[in-house]
Amino acid sequence: MSSAPAQALAGRRVVVTGGAGLIGSRLAAALQDVAADVTVIDAMVPEHGANRRNLDGLAVRLVERDLADGVADALEGAEVVFNLAGQRSHTDSMADPRTDLHHNCTAQLALLESGRESAPGATVLFASTRQIYGRVARIPADESTPIAPRDINGVHKAAAEQFHRLYHDVYGLRTLSLRLTNTYGPGMRIRDARQGFLGAWVGALTRGEAFAVWGGDQLRDLNHVDDVVDAFLLAAAEPRAVGGAFNLGGPPVSLRELAEALVHANGGGSYEVVPLPEEAKRIDIGDYAGDYTAFETLTGWRPRVALDSGLRQTLEYFRANRESYA
Amino acid sequence: MSSAPAQALAGRRVVVTGGAGLIGSRLAAALQDVAADVTVIDAMVPEHGANRRNLDGLAVRLVERDLADGVADALEGAEVVFNLAGQRSHTDSMADPRTDLHHNCTAQLALLESGRESAPGATVLFASTRQIYGRVARIPADESTPIAPRDINGVHKAAAEQFHRLYHDVYGLRTLSLRLTNTYGPGMRIRDARQGFLGAWVGALTRGEAFAVWGGDQLRDLNHVDDVVDAFLLAAAEPRAVGGAFNLGGPPVSLRELAEALVHANGGGSYEVVPLPEEAKRIDIGDYAGDYTAFETLTGWRPRVALDSGLRQTLEYFRANRESYA
Repeated sequence: MSSAPAQALAGRRVVVTGGAGLIGSRLAAALQDVAADVTVIDAMVPEHGANRRNLDGLAVRLVERDLADGVADALEGAEVVFNLAGQRSHTDSMADPRTDLHHNCTAQLALLESGRESAPGATVLFASTRQIYGRVARIPADESTPIAPRDINGVHKAAAEQFHRLYHDVYGLRTLSLRLTNTYGPGMRIRDARQGFLGAWVGALTRGEAFAVWGGDQLRDLNHVDDVVDAFLLAAAEPRAVGGAFNLGGPPVSLRELAEALVHANGGGSYEVVPLPEEAKRIDIGDYAGDYTAFETLTGWRPRVALDSGLRQTLEYFRANRESYA
Repeated sequence: MSSAPAQALAGRRVVVTGGAGLIGSRLAAALQDVAADVTVIDAMVPEHGANRRNLDGLAVRLVERDLADGVADALEGAEVVFNLAGQRSHTDSMADPRTDLHHNCTAQLALLESGRESAPGATVLFASTRQIYGRVARIPADESTPIAPRDINGVHKAAAEQFHRLYHDVYGLRTLSLRLTNTYGPGMRIRDARQGFLGAWVGALTRGEAFAVWGGDQLRDLNHVDDVVDAFLLAAAEPRAVGGAFNLGGPPVSLRELAEALVHANGGGSYEVVPLPEEAKRIDIGDYAGDYTAFETLTGWRPRVALDSGLRQTLEYFRANRESYA
């Protein structure tokens, strides 16, 4: 993979937190292609998105550490910090709020304090989420949508985004946030739904099993990981983005349509539409699609990978590499 | 002190977290007057609002414990939990964000989990704050004002308020939040400005010293502690308040006018108007006054203690009890 927007970071010193996950590892690969000096920091928490396979063949420096333990040494001299580390399972956050608080708040405060200490001039890009909006009144939802998260994970991610804004406003750190929607692609977690339902679906298909569609009529938008990587790279190169928070997003599709598209891309497979389990229903956000006009206006970004080809490429990757993600 | 709205809790089992502080201890006294069965939980953190003197003469059960350690045993059988515990120094939260996170988020999550476990039917009233709004575009500010805190304390208090809303929406806990503004009165912390500038002013006056007014033109509103106690008692008795978040508030007054009023109430004293120190300027919220129409409509509450008599009574108390608060 290579990415035109990465050129701006050719030869620069860059840090990617959560860099063994889906987005972080693809970002690291794009940066390596332009000979950036890349450090990946990842706590390699088994229940999160990290997978060592994602870093295979990359000549990046890997710092295996929890951000909460302080990373000032690893940030030394960094010009850009792509801050993608975090817990993102909604149901896990409800079952164990304190662990979610640790990974999404304690760790993020420590990252920002480390940044103040050893990389005060760096641009810090935080991976926020549409989850902070909760149930939205209309789609596509823009950034003026009230912050009203429906689960603990959303509360903590909203706080972490506010930490970033605050460290900009108060300390002059060059922070900004991208509010991601469902991101998918090669390297995602597929052994369960902890990183989103689509990972669980892909996992089932690659095992030759049927997958379960909860509900089916809910609308969601998806971004291929390469589009999200481009978004982060474009944001890093746009001084006017500093201090802000911007939606990514894509065209809405119902879960049922998405299931059909996935089976089609797979050349076969089956799924079952089932009612939402109680624990999921209680925190479900209903329909969502993000309005990314503000970010597009600033950077020219828009999603370019079509759903069908993105799904095909993802399935192909996991058919070839299933054992590393099982 | 006695409070008419307390009658509804006569003989009931009630818990007050942060009950050795300004508001909690006055609430405990009002509840004792109607023979409620009162448990006070307080971590007695030296830098916070607790003062043992505030509980003198009260026949309440005192559980000296950090909420983060779990309080399911202390909540057993409670019908109402007045949840007032927390860290509230804005500058301390900036200097040590992790400690603020502990007291305002970790502890609050633990309180709510304890409530789910041992008092799932209790009404839980959270002391939120106008600090979650940050700088407001106009005053008085109502509850639709965007949540955009200017300091770490505000981010954490906003998260804690969202925890309460979430535990209502998801688990059916009977939670609600009151967004307090500057609360003052007998029992407040006066040895420094950790619980607000007015405490520091009162402390200086009772020592016969001049006090410093930072800025002077900023508008703020104040509520006497007895009005805030009434607000909590009225909210506890109003089923339609459950699930909501409501501003308290009062008429705006400039810091300079307030300084004059305080010197007048004291029958003398002096102050100096000085520029805001850098660390305060960076997180200053400018003008603020809360629009409490929503809460007044629901409960009939409005502030009743006039500023002059409230200040007089406060100064009188501290002249008589200075050594316990110095």
